[in-house]
Amino acid sequence: MASRRIRVHIENARDNPELFRITPELWHAACNRHRSLARRLDATIGSDDDTLGDALKTADIVIGVPERREDMAQRAPRLRWMHTTSAGVDTILPLDWLPARAALTNNRGAHGVKAEQFMRMAYTLLHIRMPEIIAQQRDRRWRQLFTGSMAGKTALVVGLGDLGQAAVRAGKQLGLRVIGVSRTGKRVPHADKVYRTAALDKMLAQADFVVLAVPLTPETRCLLNSARLDLLRPASGVINIARAPVADYVALRNKLANGELAGAVLDVTEPEPLPAESPLWDTPNLIITPHISCDDGEHYIDITLDLWFENLARFLKGKPLKNRVDPRRGY
Amino acid sequence: MASRRIRVHIENARDNPELFRITPELWHAACNRHRSLARRLDATIGSDDDTLGDALKTADIVIGVPERREDMAQRAPRLRWMHTTSAGVDTILPLDWLPARAALTNNRGAHGVKAEQFMRMAYTLLHIRMPEIIAQQRDRRWRQLFTGSMAGKTALVVGLGDLGQAAVRAGKQLGLRVIGVSRTGKRVPHADKVYRTAALDKMLAQADFVVLAVPLTPETRCLLNSARLDLLRPASGVINIARAPVADYVALRNKLANGELAGAVLDVTEPEPLPAESPLWDTPNLIITPHISCDDGEHYIDITLDLWFENLARFLKGKPLKNRVDPRRGY
Repeated sequence: MASRRIRVHIENARDNPELFRITPELWHAACNRHRSLARRLDATIGSDDDTLGDALKTADIVIGVPERREDMAQRAPRLRWMHTTSAGVDTILPLDWLPARAALTNNRGAHGVKAEQFMRMAYTLLHIRMPEIIAQQRDRRWRQLFTGSMAGKTALVVGLGDLGQAAVRAGKQLGLRVIGVSRTGKRVPHADKVYRTAALDKMLAQADFVVLAVPLTPETRCLLNSARLDLLRPASGVINIARAPVADYVALRNKLANGELAGAVLDVTEPEPLPAESPLWDTPNLIITPHISCDDGEHYIDITLDLWFENLARFLKGKPLKNRVDPRRGY
Repeated sequence: MASRRIRVHIENARDNPELFRITPELWHAACNRHRSLARRLDATIGSDDDTLGDALKTADIVIGVPERREDMAQRAPRLRWMHTTSAGVDTILPLDWLPARAALTNNRGAHGVKAEQFMRMAYTLLHIRMPEIIAQQRDRRWRQLFTGSMAGKTALVVGLGDLGQAAVRAGKQLGLRVIGVSRTGKRVPHADKVYRTAALDKMLAQADFVVLAVPLTPETRCLLNSARLDLLRPASGVINIARAPVADYVALRNKLANGELAGAVLDVTEPEPLPAESPLWDTPNLIITPHISCDDGEHYIDITLDLWFENLARFLKGKPLKNRVDPRRGY
């Protein structure tokens, strides 16, 4: 493999927001940052299947998951590696279309800086009761809501990947006690404690903030269900930067409307865009942000390609790839 | 002075929010934290002038500035020290009522932790365009507004007392470049540069965020006037945690309405409470918070009394008091 040039095809999707597009300019800029690796590549860039059929015939690597994925093994006989520029792979599950000899990697690591910034804000919004203050402004009403310090409050971060760890870091910066919950229960930097998912129910009652940062898989679907929401204290707040279906939004909405939860910040909805008629929009003490918590609007592709080139170095040396998605786990 | 007991009178005002009330419980708790000093005190607590006349006759020290301040020199013949539990003294200016032999101290130092927390949020709200996102939610509209990293953006903090320094710290935590402006131009911790007020006009053009943290005095009234607002770039945001009259809110409102400024967070208005008919309430890209940025809702009086006891130690040793208000400067 070291001797011949590697064929890379980059596949864009026009209906994605522009910041996710790998333009020739951004690709060449990345190649300039990683010259010795880039020298070994032959790259093509396509969009919405326009040149995909031909490109797949010779591609060793594809960046960007094509819309049409059937018969991939036949159409892409040399495919060894496909990279999605997204962190979540829930929209391309199940992975039965992925040729057995090909690895799929995701964009883990591209979202941490933005997510940390968002999470600092989200914790503070809930702590100082900004959902109520925003509603008061809408109603042209001045009422002082005083709050104490955040230090010592407890954040429960569910899922400890790139986003979850960003939520942990943000929480510690604000002086919170941060408890993590993950499948493995493995320690991560800055978390005060990490438990396996089985401990979730017990931990919910301690949480001032619950942060959802798990990938969407059959196991995590409706993880924060109605029964678990009932375990939260009325002063608690919920933050979702993962995927909407990991929580029961109907139950969440009812609890917010009944004052049984202090507030929520939801960066993800189902569907997206959220339709105008959704009852979520005017749910009391709920702040909706339009899926903007984690994607860098200026440098998303730069960050993405730098991570990809790092992985390319491993690929060329025959080392195991980082961020490889496990088809059985689904993340 | 060291031999006899010191007469302290504590004067509350019922129309103040409850967190500012020095109750007997909070006073005794503070005395327990500062026993050796407290032992030398004879304290009385009154409210709204109910026992003030008698108390003033013997008081060496008064905590809380009474509503009626005329003839203070005659009414309080032994008064040596009056302490206001507020940071700003603008509402009791001019200080011609203060007996010449008495020092006035303010509550500088009691607001930094809360202000830092608020400022982290305020910078981030403006950076990620939350004013627009909040308006979109009100209009039931999903539109993704992506933004980049905050790192390297410039905050211009005007006024470098307790609040200003909190704004500096918060900015540095978020990776901002922080320029300070103050009367003296003296360096403060964490600020990248500090200039005298004369440099303000030149600095405004560089600012992504302008933070107003000056005391309200004749010199700072309308400091951020219409001409200075015109020096800001359209992408800039304004944050006021000081007093409303330090900025020209009519000009600010017009610039926001015309899209000539990206956003603003105003924690202070004139008057307060802001009446329902004020046009500020629905000014585009403006977030109003009801003067809650800097006062700890749980421990304001604990913090206040700890600072006061620190100063009492100086008083008893005949040392100069900290936080002494200069009657000529007005802060």
